[in-house]
Amino acid sequence: MEDKKPKIDACFSPFLYPVYKDDNSIVVIIDVLRATSAICVAFEYGVEKIIPVATVEEAREYKQKGFLVGAERNGLPLNGFDFGNSPFNYMGDHVKGKTIVLTTTNGTQAIEAAKNAYKVAIGSFLNIDSLCNWLIKENKNILLLCSGWKNKFNLEDAVFAGAVTDKISQGNENYKLGDGCLALKYLYQLAKENPNKFLSHSSHKERLAALNLKEDVRYCLTPNQTKVIPIYKDGALVKM
Amino acid sequence: MEDKKPKIDACFSPFLYPVYKDDNSIVVIIDVLRATSAICVAFEYGVEKIIPVATVEEAREYKQKGFLVGAERNGLPLNGFDFGNSPFNYMGDHVKGKTIVLTTTNGTQAIEAAKNAYKVAIGSFLNIDSLCNWLIKENKNILLLCSGWKNKFNLEDAVFAGAVTDKISQGNENYKLGDGCLALKYLYQLAKENPNKFLSHSSHKERLAALNLKEDVRYCLTPNQTKVIPIYKDGALVKM
Repeated sequence: MEDKKPKIDACFSPFLYPVYKDDNSIVVIIDVLRATSAICVAFEYGVEKIIPVATVEEAREYKQKGFLVGAERNGLPLNGFDFGNSPFNYMGDHVKGKTIVLTTTNGTQAIEAAKNAYKVAIGSFLNIDSLCNWLIKENKNILLLCSGWKNKFNLEDAVFAGAVTDKISQGNENYKLGDGCLALKYLYQLAKENPNKFLSHSSHKERLAALNLKEDVRYCLTPNQTKVIPIYKDGALVKM
Repeated sequence: MEDKKPKIDACFSPFLYPVYKDDNSIVVIIDVLRATSAICVAFEYGVEKIIPVATVEEAREYKQKGFLVGAERNGLPLNGFDFGNSPFNYMGDHVKGKTIVLTTTNGTQAIEAAKNAYKVAIGSFLNIDSLCNWLIKENKNILLLCSGWKNKFNLEDAVFAGAVTDKISQGNENYKLGDGCLALKYLYQLAKENPNKFLSHSSHKERLAALNLKEDVRYCLTPNQTKVIPIYKDGALVKM
C-alpha cells in the first residue's frame, strides 16, 4: 500500500536532475532569487508567453528578431537586452500580452534540464499557496528542482522547497517524503519565522546585497503575491 | 581578507562531485550507514590496507587472486565474498595486518569519484573528533562528500556533514561556510540530541531496519569509538 502514495523529493541542482528524473513526476522549478519570482510576476502582469533559453547566444538571436528579451548573468542584467531578472522589471503594462524571451544564470538552466518531464511548473514564494493547492489536487509524484547557483546547492531554493514540502505534507499522510525533502522540511521549520534573517548568511543573498538588491530579496521572500501558476508547454511558459 | 579564509562545503552526491571539485580541498568521504563506519573499524582493528573498488567484477578478480574481499549491494553482503559492509564484520584479529578489498553500493563510488583530490580522508561518527581536530590543523579548504544512496541525497550522511561543520566552525570564525554546509549545520543542531530518533524517517535507516540491522545503525551513530583517520594514498586506504 505504502508504494501507492505519491512521493515528494527535492533535487538540489539541475546537474543532478538525471539521477532524480522520473517520467511520472510534476517538476517544480525553483529559483527564488530571482528567475522564478520574476516569471510569476510577469504572468501576474499579463505576459502572454515566456520562452526560456539556456544561452546568451540564443537570447541574442531572439533579440535580433525583434523579441523582448530578459538576460541575466551573475546577478546582473546584460547589456543590449530589455530586462534583467528582477521581478520589478516585469511589473507594469509594458509586459501585457507580450512574448518575452528569458535567459538567467540558473533558473532557465533548470527549466532546460527538466523540459521533457510529465509536467513542469514554476514555483516561488510569490505563488506558493496557489502552487501547493494545485499540486495536492494533482495527486502525482512531485520533484522540487532547485536551480541552485551554478549547479551548487543554495539555501534560498532549499528553504522554499522545504516550505512546499511542509505545506503539502502538513496533516496529510498521503505523501511519501524522500530524504531530500525531509531535510528541507526541517530546514524550513527553522527558517519560517523570519526567512530574510535565516538567509542572511546565504551566499547568493550576500551576492545580491552587494549589488544593492535588498529590495528584490525582500520582495522575492514575500508569500502569495499572485495566484498564477506558470507551466511549460510546447517550448514556452504559459499561464495555466 | 575574507577570501583567504579556508572554505567548507558539502557535496550531496558523488554524481555532483565534478561541480564541487577543487584541487585545494581535503575531501572527506562520508557513508555513515555503513561503508565509512566499517572502514574506520577495520583500521581500529589493525587492517593494513583497504583497496576500494567500484565494481563487483573488480572485487571478484581480487577474490580470485586470493585477497580478502568485502562486497555489499543494496544493504546485503554478496555471496562468494568474505565480508559485507557491517562494521561488526571487521572487528577482531582476523583483519589485523591484512589487505582487504572493498566494494559497496555508495561509499566506494564516492572514493572513486574523489580519488585525485589533494587529500582524501574517511569520516564517520566513529572517528569524528579525531577527524575534525586534524582538519582544523590542516587549515585547508574542506569538501564533505556525502555518498548518499545511489547518487541521491541521504539524511544520515547529511547529518554527519553537519556535525563536522558544527564542530569545525563552532567558536571559530576562521572558515567560510558554503550554503550546503550552512544548511547541514542547522540540520545537525536539530538532530544532535537524538540522532537515532531524528533519522527514524530516513529512507536508508528504514531499509536497514527492514534488514534487521538496527544494531549496525546504533553503532554507526556512536561518536568517537576510534582515533584512526583512514586516508587514500596510491590506490588504497591506509591509516594516517
